[in-house]
Amino acid sequence: MKNLKQLNDRIISRVNVNLKEFDFDTGNFVENTLDYKKMLKFFAFYGITAHHPIHFHFMESNIAGSYFLGKCYVKRSAVYKTDVRGDELKRKGDSIQCAKDIPLQEDEFISIKDSLLYKTLVHNYSHNPESPEEFSIRNTVSAHYANIHGTTIEGSFLGPFATVDLMALHSCIVGEFSYIQAEELFHQRIDPGTVWIKNEDFNFQYTFKKEVLDNYVGITDSHQPRGMIYDFVQQREGDYEKIFETVNPKPLKAPANSAVSRFAVTKGDTQIGENVLVAQRAFLENAEMGGGSNAQENSYIINSKLAGLNVTAHGGKIINADMGLKVFVGFNAFLNGKEDARLVVGNNCIVMPHTIIDNDIPLEIEENHVVWGFIRNKKDLEKNSIHVDKLAEHQGKLKLGRMTFNGSGRKFFDAFTGRIEHILEANGAYCDDSSNRGHAQDDQKIAFNLIQPYRTGKKKGIYPEIQINP
Amino acid sequence: MKNLKQLNDRIISRVNVNLKEFDFDTGNFVENTLDYKKMLKFFAFYGITAHHPIHFHFMESNIAGSYFLGKCYVKRSAVYKTDVRGDELKRKGDSIQCAKDIPLQEDEFISIKDSLLYKTLVHNYSHNPESPEEFSIRNTVSAHYANIHGTTIEGSFLGPFATVDLMALHSCIVGEFSYIQAEELFHQRIDPGTVWIKNEDFNFQYTFKKEVLDNYVGITDSHQPRGMIYDFVQQREGDYEKIFETVNPKPLKAPANSAVSRFAVTKGDTQIGENVLVAQRAFLENAEMGGGSNAQENSYIINSKLAGLNVTAHGGKIINADMGLKVFVGFNAFLNGKEDARLVVGNNCIVMPHTIIDNDIPLEIEENHVVWGFIRNKKDLEKNSIHVDKLAEHQGKLKLGRMTFNGSGRKFFDAFTGRIEHILEANGAYCDDSSNRGHAQDDQKIAFNLIQPYRTGKKKGIYPEIQINP
Repeated sequence: MKNLKQLNDRIISRVNVNLKEFDFDTGNFVENTLDYKKMLKFFAFYGITAHHPIHFHFMESNIAGSYFLGKCYVKRSAVYKTDVRGDELKRKGDSIQCAKDIPLQEDEFISIKDSLLYKTLVHNYSHNPESPEEFSIRNTVSAHYANIHGTTIEGSFLGPFATVDLMALHSCIVGEFSYIQAEELFHQRIDPGTVWIKNEDFNFQYTFKKEVLDNYVGITDSHQPRGMIYDFVQQREGDYEKIFETVNPKPLKAPANSAVSRFAVTKGDTQIGENVLVAQRAFLENAEMGGGSNAQENSYIINSKLAGLNVTAHGGKIINADMGLKVFVGFNAFLNGKEDARLVVGNNCIVMPHTIIDNDIPLEIEENHVVWGFIRNKKDLEKNSIHVDKLAEHQGKLKLGRMTFNGSGRKFFDAFTGRIEHILEANGAYCDDSSNRGHAQDDQKIAFNLIQPYRTGKKKGIYPEIQINP
Repeated sequence: MKNLKQLNDRIISRVNVNLKEFDFDTGNFVENTLDYKKMLKFFAFYGITAHHPIHFHFMESNIAGSYFLGKCYVKRSAVYKTDVRGDELKRKGDSIQCAKDIPLQEDEFISIKDSLLYKTLVHNYSHNPESPEEFSIRNTVSAHYANIHGTTIEGSFLGPFATVDLMALHSCIVGEFSYIQAEELFHQRIDPGTVWIKNEDFNFQYTFKKEVLDNYVGITDSHQPRGMIYDFVQQREGDYEKIFETVNPKPLKAPANSAVSRFAVTKGDTQIGENVLVAQRAFLENAEMGGGSNAQENSYIINSKLAGLNVTAHGGKIINADMGLKVFVGFNAFLNGKEDARLVVGNNCIVMPHTIIDNDIPLEIEENHVVWGFIRNKKDLEKNSIHVDKLAEHQGKLKLGRMTFNGSGRKFFDAFTGRIEHILEANGAYCDDSSNRGHAQDDQKIAFNLIQPYRTGKKKGIYPEIQINP
């Protein structure tokens, strides 16, 4: 186990150096998080398909429970039950859009070095024009259920359930349950519960009240998560562990043009429509997935019905809800309807990332609305939603409840709807027999290779070096 | 699937060139053997322990169902459910004994190129002084349950249940159920059912009657195996397939100093003593494994009791038998006692490789005997056994039934007992707390990595290139 302990010490010292101005000791988090027994218990795996370029290189790392699909390099890191993907890696000759289009000189790859990613999702769809070929995560620690999404990152700490989206981050601390999409940040500390979307055209900001946040996602003295959302995922952890115990579990019945990952949990009366993608580590229980819907990694859909073309982003949770057509539910949103107080969301609604809806009486969100923040009832909804037409017409400053907006509402709306369309297309929601294939069609025939660490000796817990090429 | 078909064609043409003098078409065997569906169904795996140097390199091959432990290189080959091992690979600085000791310049590795090994065991403990660093198998096809044991080999065809042992083989055909250990052979065709052990000190030979052989291991026109022994293993094939369906099956209860492979089948009331090794793909059903016993790959021990320090070599089968202390059962021996006609084998007996005992009335072999050939009853036994003392005293020619011997009985006996001691030591039969560790102790904490081929596209059935280093 000697090498694994050295690995952690090295990661801690690297991250601490980057964060020294904040007087932040990552060791406090790391030493209270890593369960060495579990790091030995789970296998890592990688997918092989004819549709993704296979290049993996894992060195001096523990990658227990993690999943790799695209070109990926991991060195001196602990990547524990992290869903790294890479099925949207750019290829040589592709361009990254910037002031000027920048063509890639070689295939893009994901590189994770000197980092600890603990139950973190990395799903690259990167936009960093400074290193288009390398999606890099360095000297970084991210806590439980953080999402590193299209964000190159170095020297940073992400708290539990934090999301960094389509940006670049240098020497920053991102508080628990914060969502940021702010182009590029240097040496900043983001308060917990901040939802912040900013570019040259607009600036959206919402911050959860401390007492609300504490109830849903708090942290202990050692930065361990606590609160209702953490309890919710913890209670379902055992179901994922069972998945690791069978090599080829009996798949859920699904149409030929839909993909249900064998590493997803599916329970109860769950039904899958056409062109549906259910990603690994998604959790479906009594879920009705309408045509073209997707359930992304770490999403939970329980006792709920999705009408069709629904996007449930990474970490999104939908419980006791009826979702209309083409409803988007953002990262880590927590939609907690009750058995006797269902939540109804109308067609074309956009539920912003990190939204918490926790209604104890029936609640309906009318169609074509954008919603955010913390909502328990109809009254909260008034201050936490806007009709898409009204948003699209808006220009300049807007304050609604705890939300502030400045800039072009049209551009904000277009950015969201454009992205939703991209997600639907990429996931194969619009596939017909001859064209518009996506993950729902291409990810069906994945072969999974399972790899494990040394079980004894000084390398105990470390994986042998492994290189895979086509 | 295109590449997989090309692979087979290439192997066939390579082997045929080497065997052209015999007018032998390997294609006849290969084309009737390979079941492409099965080559996609099973995963290959390799073991990681702190005790074996890990270096694997697999290229342009299908290695479905096979198991790798030591340093191994596989290129342009189909290695299907083959137990390659390599836990006795020599290291840099070790010597190979020859006229003069030859020190190794680098760690030994197993190299398999342009070959098809179909349910074949490769377990190297090589003695080829010409290439001490490379245990090489090239341009070779081996059929069901053949054993390539310590034998470097090129341009050859091994029939079903054939064994080549501690030698070197060039452009040879070895008939079904033949066992040869004859130093080095060039361009020879070995008749089916030949048991031949030869060196400068002695020459042992036995050949099964054709009609007897046909009953136990025959071949069809396309060199596919048939007969009672093949039916016996075929009937139990399903039990092995189940092993592939769970990642970490519940292990059989065994003492801390014993190892039962998670890829072994264990059924009924099976009991494991101290310092016992049960290798992958061993099959135990109502088996009592006395202290220090081992059941090697592809061995079957059914309704039988092994008193202790028993060696059951690769492919050995023991059914309805009571085995005394330190009984050795050689490769592919078939000891077929009946429920109402048990077979009793006394202490220190040596059952030669490829011996068939098939008694319909109770039969007892007295202690300290060497037995060989085909035995159904007491009368057969007289012509197919010799007391070890009598053997050790013998010098010169000896003919007994269908067996001929010439040379030093003492050296023949010493060679066998020396080898049995080596096997017991290497497997950890003599381990006490502080010393004499072997496979039974070191193989317990193996981590297994499971790898699979492409499931679609032109590479369907071919494994991605994979390199693993410590």
